[in-house]
Amino acid sequence: MLQTTLDDLLTQVRLRLEEDDLSGAVAVLESLRSADQADLFTELEEEEQAALLPQLTPDNAADLLEELDDEDAARLVDGLPPANLARIVEEMEPDEAADLLAELEEDQLAAVLSELEDPDEVRPLLLHPEDSAGGLMTSHLALRRRMTAAEALAAIRQLEPDSEEIPVFFVVDQYGKLCGELSLRQLVMADPNTLLRDVMNPDVISVPVGVDQEEAARLVARYDLAALPVVDDEDRLVGVITVDDVLDVLAEEATEDIQRLGGAQPLDQAYFNVSMPLIVRKRIGWLLFLFVADTLTGTVLRAYEDELATAVALSFFIPLIIGTGGNTGSQTVTTIVRALALGEVRLRDVFHVIWRESAVGLMLGILLGAVGFVRALTWHTGLEIALVVSLTLLAVVIWSNLIAAVVPILAERFRIDPSVVSAPLITSIVDATGLLIYFSLAKLLLGI
Amino acid sequence: MLQTTLDDLLTQVRLRLEEDDLSGAVAVLESLRSADQADLFTELEEEEQAALLPQLTPDNAADLLEELDDEDAARLVDGLPPANLARIVEEMEPDEAADLLAELEEDQLAAVLSELEDPDEVRPLLLHPEDSAGGLMTSHLALRRRMTAAEALAAIRQLEPDSEEIPVFFVVDQYGKLCGELSLRQLVMADPNTLLRDVMNPDVISVPVGVDQEEAARLVARYDLAALPVVDDEDRLVGVITVDDVLDVLAEEATEDIQRLGGAQPLDQAYFNVSMPLIVRKRIGWLLFLFVADTLTGTVLRAYEDELATAVALSFFIPLIIGTGGNTGSQTVTTIVRALALGEVRLRDVFHVIWRESAVGLMLGILLGAVGFVRALTWHTGLEIALVVSLTLLAVVIWSNLIAAVVPILAERFRIDPSVVSAPLITSIVDATGLLIYFSLAKLLLGI
Repeated sequence: MLQTTLDDLLTQVRLRLEEDDLSGAVAVLESLRSADQADLFTELEEEEQAALLPQLTPDNAADLLEELDDEDAARLVDGLPPANLARIVEEMEPDEAADLLAELEEDQLAAVLSELEDPDEVRPLLLHPEDSAGGLMTSHLALRRRMTAAEALAAIRQLEPDSEEIPVFFVVDQYGKLCGELSLRQLVMADPNTLLRDVMNPDVISVPVGVDQEEAARLVARYDLAALPVVDDEDRLVGVITVDDVLDVLAEEATEDIQRLGGAQPLDQAYFNVSMPLIVRKRIGWLLFLFVADTLTGTVLRAYEDELATAVALSFFIPLIIGTGGNTGSQTVTTIVRALALGEVRLRDVFHVIWRESAVGLMLGILLGAVGFVRALTWHTGLEIALVVSLTLLAVVIWSNLIAAVVPILAERFRIDPSVVSAPLITSIVDATGLLIYFSLAKLLLGI
Repeated sequence: MLQTTLDDLLTQVRLRLEEDDLSGAVAVLESLRSADQADLFTELEEEEQAALLPQLTPDNAADLLEELDDEDAARLVDGLPPANLARIVEEMEPDEAADLLAELEEDQLAAVLSELEDPDEVRPLLLHPEDSAGGLMTSHLALRRRMTAAEALAAIRQLEPDSEEIPVFFVVDQYGKLCGELSLRQLVMADPNTLLRDVMNPDVISVPVGVDQEEAARLVARYDLAALPVVDDEDRLVGVITVDDVLDVLAEEATEDIQRLGGAQPLDQAYFNVSMPLIVRKRIGWLLFLFVADTLTGTVLRAYEDELATAVALSFFIPLIIGTGGNTGSQTVTTIVRALALGEVRLRDVFHVIWRESAVGLMLGILLGAVGFVRALTWHTGLEIALVVSLTLLAVVIWSNLIAAVVPILAERFRIDPSVVSAPLITSIVDATGLLIYFSLAKLLLGI
């Protein structure tokens, strides 16, 4: 939806709310798709939201709550009577309902569960950590191996018309063990009297309930699955992960990687939902660590105090040298970390990567060294300093390219998430070592 | 698949190839899922691949080619007779087939098209740029508005059993104009004699054929669509975008953003597929630009040559000050750029963001300033320098936090992709201005 359209609709809703025309405000809201309703709703003040929510049909309220952050949704339903909340929860997808219920206080949760018509649809989903496959899965009709295609279709026709549409169904044996899958289309195309076990595909990819949600998401993306069944220790089907949840997980994961690469702990929530003290906590750790690393660079400078005093001109190039090293390193580290995340680069490729990045570093180093030489000459700091600067640039670029390629692969080797190797970390490593290279070359060539 | 399993299978295939046991090698390969087949296949040498490909059934070869990069796939099929290639292409999803055909030489393309049984399934897909909705879409059965549910199901039963399963069908009028959608489940549940126009959902989200593929992908993710119809200027249905393609586009987009944030042009391909000279070209532009920015920092140092000569100790803190400014800026810029990409932060939020980041900068600045004060004291550079350093840290952290928040929002305002505002760019801006703050404070407080 366009920003102007959103602003316009927001004004309409607010006008009606000011005139106490609640049903008018609801009408505007209900004319939108649920994702857009959520956008509009989040722009309202908390009192406005609380006034509107009880006016919505349970169905519409459910759609809206599904689109909000779980915490926001829980805060919003806090004042609703348990019976009303139960009506809304019944209209939600089971996985979304479980996420919302998990945020409630214990007594409120018990009250809502006791009001639900079919609490067993949601209750098993409450048991699993939010970031595991179990936390991501939803309830879904399981078909029996000995059903005929006609019986299966009849069972599907019994589903609520507005329950989540999952284009594939999973087949279980008499013990509830997962033993096959078939799509609705296969079912439609099958002879009505065949048994499911004769038409189903017995080779199903599934995940255990405790597996990390990112791993489950990657399986869905890798094998282009329409849905991924989740099983317990004894291979019994306990739920299904759908593609729309996978899209969210993969987006979340990319966000985490990006924030880590920038040198901060992931926020795990939308920008404006994170309180400022929490942001500070998420950022200060890395900043302090890098601070120590940067004082190391200062220590290097201090060790060369006499040389610096003799040739102050050397100091002019310090930002250029540590800047160029840092920039090259950041380019490489972001590329390698992402390639590791996508599986394009693996542990066994380490020597191949070293060879490539050394060669690329050499080419970049020659180009930047040449430019640095000319730049130093135009500053009239003398031919010798120009030579020192350009050789240092060549060496630093190769060095930082190598460090930035090897460190994330080593992290992966030692089972540390490579994305914690941030661009600022590489920059800090390269700063100190780059200056060591610089002053060593300067002593050698200038004889100071 | 585990790395060890892959290595093991690779050895088995190679052994059989060495013994000229082509059918044995094929048997190993065909025992795997297509995504895993592709993994194994890409590990083989080009001659090995060329030897295996003609031995595969067209169906299996099609699955394999779909998983490879388009360019690799095109190079591989280069030697196949057009008739054989046509048999393979017929087994591919129409959108994947079109991507492969688009890589062929013109005369080879013509030869293959003339051998196809139904070239019209693929031909319209060849017309659109690869990164537009048209380039992403595939052909899919369109249902007619005046069909009954029974007729529609009969038409679906006529589809090839192994054609791509899309869980939703789109409905067109007599002119081919898109006028509704319904899922296979709705169709199964409908009374066989109702007309589609009476059961379909007439409110369909669609995109024009020329729209950017990322925008199409974002619509699918935002509205949790099972498939997105693509229409021409006159609203006629021309194709359908499926969720599996959207997963790929969103992953590609996240990769581009990450590479840009690291300060390089996106590679647009898997790491090992990019030639080294191309990598150098993608990286050198930004490096040279940042190089110029870094020499500016040198210019600032040069302007304060006398002050530096008087108090060499000031130079020890240069890496700490520009490092801390750069680190804070990188954290903020990556967070804001990602929040803009996800729509969590919009243009109108600029003042809200400025307020938050100033406050966060103040908190971080006080903490880091305090630590810096202690660190400077322990270096015995005197109380005055310690005071200058800690005040500079406070100012630089707030300043770089602000710059890093505002610049990407301004970029968005001027319709520049915010992800081009990389962490290294912010670092370079903050380096020069940070030193200005440092020396100004030093002159003021030390009286030099």
